[in-house]
Amino acid sequence: MQNSNYQALLDVAMSRSTNRAFQPDYVVPDEHFEQILEVARHAPSGANSQPWHYIVVREQAMKDALTDCFKVEQRKRAKLKMRFPTPNYEGLRTAPGLIVVVADLRFTRAFPVLNDGSELDRMYQQNAERILLQSVAASVMSAHLAAASLGYAVWWVTAIGQEAIQDQFRPMLGVPEELSIIDLMVFGPPLKPSYNRFKRELSDVLNWDRFDPSHFMSEGDLAEWIKTRRHKVMYKDEKNVD
Amino acid sequence: MQNSNYQALLDVAMSRSTNRAFQPDYVVPDEHFEQILEVARHAPSGANSQPWHYIVVREQAMKDALTDCFKVEQRKRAKLKMRFPTPNYEGLRTAPGLIVVVADLRFTRAFPVLNDGSELDRMYQQNAERILLQSVAASVMSAHLAAASLGYAVWWVTAIGQEAIQDQFRPMLGVPEELSIIDLMVFGPPLKPSYNRFKRELSDVLNWDRFDPSHFMSEGDLAEWIKTRRHKVMYKDEKNVD
Repeated sequence: MQNSNYQALLDVAMSRSTNRAFQPDYVVPDEHFEQILEVARHAPSGANSQPWHYIVVREQAMKDALTDCFKVEQRKRAKLKMRFPTPNYEGLRTAPGLIVVVADLRFTRAFPVLNDGSELDRMYQQNAERILLQSVAASVMSAHLAAASLGYAVWWVTAIGQEAIQDQFRPMLGVPEELSIIDLMVFGPPLKPSYNRFKRELSDVLNWDRFDPSHFMSEGDLAEWIKTRRHKVMYKDEKNVD
Repeated sequence: MQNSNYQALLDVAMSRSTNRAFQPDYVVPDEHFEQILEVARHAPSGANSQPWHYIVVREQAMKDALTDCFKVEQRKRAKLKMRFPTPNYEGLRTAPGLIVVVADLRFTRAFPVLNDGSELDRMYQQNAERILLQSVAASVMSAHLAAASLGYAVWWVTAIGQEAIQDQFRPMLGVPEELSIIDLMVFGPPLKPSYNRFKRELSDVLNWDRFDPSHFMSEGDLAEWIKTRRHKVMYKDEKNVD
């Protein structure tokens, strides 16, 4: 029983694939949203605060509005010459599954903090926010695995913390300003098959007893990775990543 | 097939339970560490950066040293009168499964950032760091689900970002100072059965089309939660959380 659950989980984790364009006419049954969030709500969280809210977006007008915000951001980044290979956000518009992830970062108060404005407090506050971001991600990851287990391709638009986007999204979705809109979860049957993403080998990720120095990327390695490999690992099949 | 994978995933998510004391004489087979990290390495990450390293700690002396660091932190917090119901870190010492999670936050450079020290750059840098923290959490959550599917109780010591602890851990584990030690993943057969944690209902977490204002906690609700409910949802069975 336990081993068969491990095997099913590994199957799901390995079959989970990112895609950024979905079949536009497919309608996700409401029951699937419920099944996905049923898994998400069981995630662990710091101080068991469960600092997440999920908004299922089904109306086309709302999808259009969200997509347009991202395209404005995309143009802004292009103007700033960030040279980041930004994905095509147009796929949001016709995504059958679109869930907005909202975090209540006020729960930092529920962690060990001092609330006295001191330097030490600043450190503890930052740490508390990190705990909350990791908690929300644990829940969102559970949701993604659930969507994959239902046969969907997925797209995690992470940490869309830019205030400009949040300020536009909040009134549209009725989200109080005390809350933070931090991710979009997007899914559906893919328009074209997903490519297999390059993944580091287990032996590159696992260290026995002490950190293996051969796993460390030097500053040069990192610069080289950004220059020559980033766009390949993001947008090519692993067969085409050397 | 897909539905049976969903059911297995839900089973695993629901059976995953936090515990903070494990059977001290149990030895985790090396193969289980590999199975757990095999799932973890397939997690998605921003720009497919896979910014994680896992260090499997098997030596008792290392477990003792890590535990002692946490107990120093625990005493520091108590002295600072943070009134946080800190867990008993003594369980780390005898944990059969102990994995240190290391993040390479230098990958912020691989995201849309300006690197010009401007206010706008500061915002993008912060966002990039959030993306990386969520990415690592997605991988760690996968690892926790894998451990649960193998029958273990788990304990996620989140975001141990305190520089003081990191500075002590890095040389012990051979971690270069460029990397960040951000979580511990702890697991094993539990010493006593885990209690069922209180989880918010699906209807409290799911919002159709727009945010349901009744899901919002006011400032007063939040203060009350910290004062009267936090210790219950953290340390009591859900039957004993009113």
